[in-house]
Amino acid sequence: MADATRYLLPKGFQFGATKAGLKKSGRTDFALIVADSPASAAAAFTANRVTAAPLIVDKENLRASAGRVRVAAINAGNANCAAGQAGLDAARATCDAAARVFECKPEEVFPSSTGIIGVPLPAEKLIAAMPALAATLGSEFDHFQQVAQAILTTDLVEKTAFRRFDIQEADGTTREVRIAGLCKGSGMIHPQLVPHATMLVYILTDAGVEPAELQTYLNQAIELSFNRISVDGDTSTNDTVLLLASGASGVEVGAEYAPFAAALMQVCKSLARQVVADGEGITHVVELQIEGADSDADALKIARAIAHSPLVKTAWAGSDPNWGRLVAAIGYSGAEIDPERIDIRFGDLQICRDGGRALEFDESAAHDYIAQPEFSINIQLHQGSGSCVFWTTDLTVEYIHINADYST
Amino acid sequence: MADATRYLLPKGFQFGATKAGLKKSGRTDFALIVADSPASAAAAFTANRVTAAPLIVDKENLRASAGRVRVAAINAGNANCAAGQAGLDAARATCDAAARVFECKPEEVFPSSTGIIGVPLPAEKLIAAMPALAATLGSEFDHFQQVAQAILTTDLVEKTAFRRFDIQEADGTTREVRIAGLCKGSGMIHPQLVPHATMLVYILTDAGVEPAELQTYLNQAIELSFNRISVDGDTSTNDTVLLLASGASGVEVGAEYAPFAAALMQVCKSLARQVVADGEGITHVVELQIEGADSDADALKIARAIAHSPLVKTAWAGSDPNWGRLVAAIGYSGAEIDPERIDIRFGDLQICRDGGRALEFDESAAHDYIAQPEFSINIQLHQGSGSCVFWTTDLTVEYIHINADYST
Repeated sequence: MADATRYLLPKGFQFGATKAGLKKSGRTDFALIVADSPASAAAAFTANRVTAAPLIVDKENLRASAGRVRVAAINAGNANCAAGQAGLDAARATCDAAARVFECKPEEVFPSSTGIIGVPLPAEKLIAAMPALAATLGSEFDHFQQVAQAILTTDLVEKTAFRRFDIQEADGTTREVRIAGLCKGSGMIHPQLVPHATMLVYILTDAGVEPAELQTYLNQAIELSFNRISVDGDTSTNDTVLLLASGASGVEVGAEYAPFAAALMQVCKSLARQVVADGEGITHVVELQIEGADSDADALKIARAIAHSPLVKTAWAGSDPNWGRLVAAIGYSGAEIDPERIDIRFGDLQICRDGGRALEFDESAAHDYIAQPEFSINIQLHQGSGSCVFWTTDLTVEYIHINADYST
Repeated sequence: MADATRYLLPKGFQFGATKAGLKKSGRTDFALIVADSPASAAAAFTANRVTAAPLIVDKENLRASAGRVRVAAINAGNANCAAGQAGLDAARATCDAAARVFECKPEEVFPSSTGIIGVPLPAEKLIAAMPALAATLGSEFDHFQQVAQAILTTDLVEKTAFRRFDIQEADGTTREVRIAGLCKGSGMIHPQLVPHATMLVYILTDAGVEPAELQTYLNQAIELSFNRISVDGDTSTNDTVLLLASGASGVEVGAEYAPFAAALMQVCKSLARQVVADGEGITHVVELQIEGADSDADALKIARAIAHSPLVKTAWAGSDPNWGRLVAAIGYSGAEIDPERIDIRFGDLQICRDGGRALEFDESAAHDYIAQPEFSINIQLHQGSGSCVFWTTDLTVEYIHINADYST
């Protein structure tokens, strides 16, 4: 098993995780991703005006290092957000400690935190755990999985995605490029990443890509993946996507190279859907296909209004084909619409036509269709050519239990 | 009892309700408010682009009648929304029938509907019930209460409010003006009324006020009452506020008459708070006091972001003083803020100062405070002089049961 899976991982990275004592559960909560030498880096951060201390430090560090990262240091169990100067000090102390252990510059360290907001991060626990953790890093698949496990909070499952493609060099040799992604995220999920996440995403490749071009690839990929999902409509203070390119494959990738862009997009979409599928308490994953909107921006407004409507989401939880709630959300979305031209399908079932109940509407068939764990809803506005695809979830009693009964 | 309460009701109106067969529960579902002669009318309707058929007919009728209403005809159990031409035909047929029964013009009838969206309204049931209902109308308090009961859907309690004030005339005589309001609303509550409401509100006064001035009074009152509440963030297709002035007190009220404006504002605020307090499944009513914002509009953005955050609302359900979720919602509200200058109090308890946990933060005291059924949260931004007061609720398991398990 380890023999097969190791060929999924990009060359040039080592991984490891340990228990630093941040999670009440006592599980692993501190992970390191270490590049053999400083990797090209591209990153995207939450649009929330309140941003966690590590994000502030990450932005400073990426500027100071001209887009190079040696160590990603990730803790779960504490978001290090809304903790003032103490929060910044804790993030910087973590960078300094990693720089000593790995003999790199502090600005080549990329700290991330996820967990409860408003409680100062005990950086001394991370610093104390670092030397022993550094001694156990490895590049086997198990090491990678340890990271994917340690960064989880209310998540139920690890979320990873892998792609490979071959490049035929001019001299006839074939070289392989690998991309591997891992992420966490389950609640407070409605990323609005800038340049455009308590979602943390790490994507690694052994392609050689300069930081500026890497950022362009990342921006294109996140816009149609992480920026098209919502579990609860709460945009986190900590959302982060980090893409690292080690160059260890020996393949240099320039700008606008379609195979790399496509493989990266697939990894991002896979991870984004895994986040939705592991949304807190969810029982249904819904793909919203908005078509015929006045603009793509209007299509997105409609998708977000639907994805954030408690009445729509609770109807889904009950497998109730109450399409009237969809129509109401479309109406208050702020998009340009003509109420009498709205068509709605659940999969292949016509539900609403010209803004009213379709003649062939079959409540029992509609119920059975949306009783499935995954289903799609297609909304045609007949206004223009704007469209989007968006992934969201239902809203269940278990979501309330998770967020009302346990402080996270 | 009837002797005392009858003095609460404005003169010039009669009331009644019956079972027309629209509610599955078999309860009363059709109500009439009939002015002795056409009353001055002002109205406000939902900003949802999808508006129910009766609202379209109401707007036409108010234009045609130059702001005069003789009969308000209100059904519960069916929203008459997203039903195409059949919906408009049903609303107009109801007007025609009321015009015949009460010998008025069809445009002097104001139909309203609340209930499930997307199912054609069986107007024939209302029309058949009308003659017998007309024969039993009355001006006793019991008649008024019958209306307040019949228009409810998922509401648990009737919602009414009353104010009286005296006017000293130039000739030394004292005359009394009365205002009485009744409303329904429990879920799909986030009114965004235009000129600036599945909330239906009827406010009656025996003051004499011309329609244009009545509309100005209404606009001022709703802006700080119904437009400042949210249960679930879903803006309904049917929200309606109707204010009728019969003139039967003998008191003529001109423009900008403070006692009338104040009494009307008090009735609107009381009804708005009653809607929130009867929100679907709620266990806490929260008053949000946003102060020091860059503008009033920014204050309102912050209040709405908080009021619509599932994570904030579930924390309240669990009496969890997780103020970090408040900070996150403030951050993504879109308002201009400085994260390091945010102060938060729960009642008199300082929770957050300068964007971080207050030194005197006492988790146990904070928990006890928000375990109360009603509490207030004060947020000071230190940005400017913008402010607002907004009323909202928690989000509970019972809300999910109501909306996932029973189609409404």
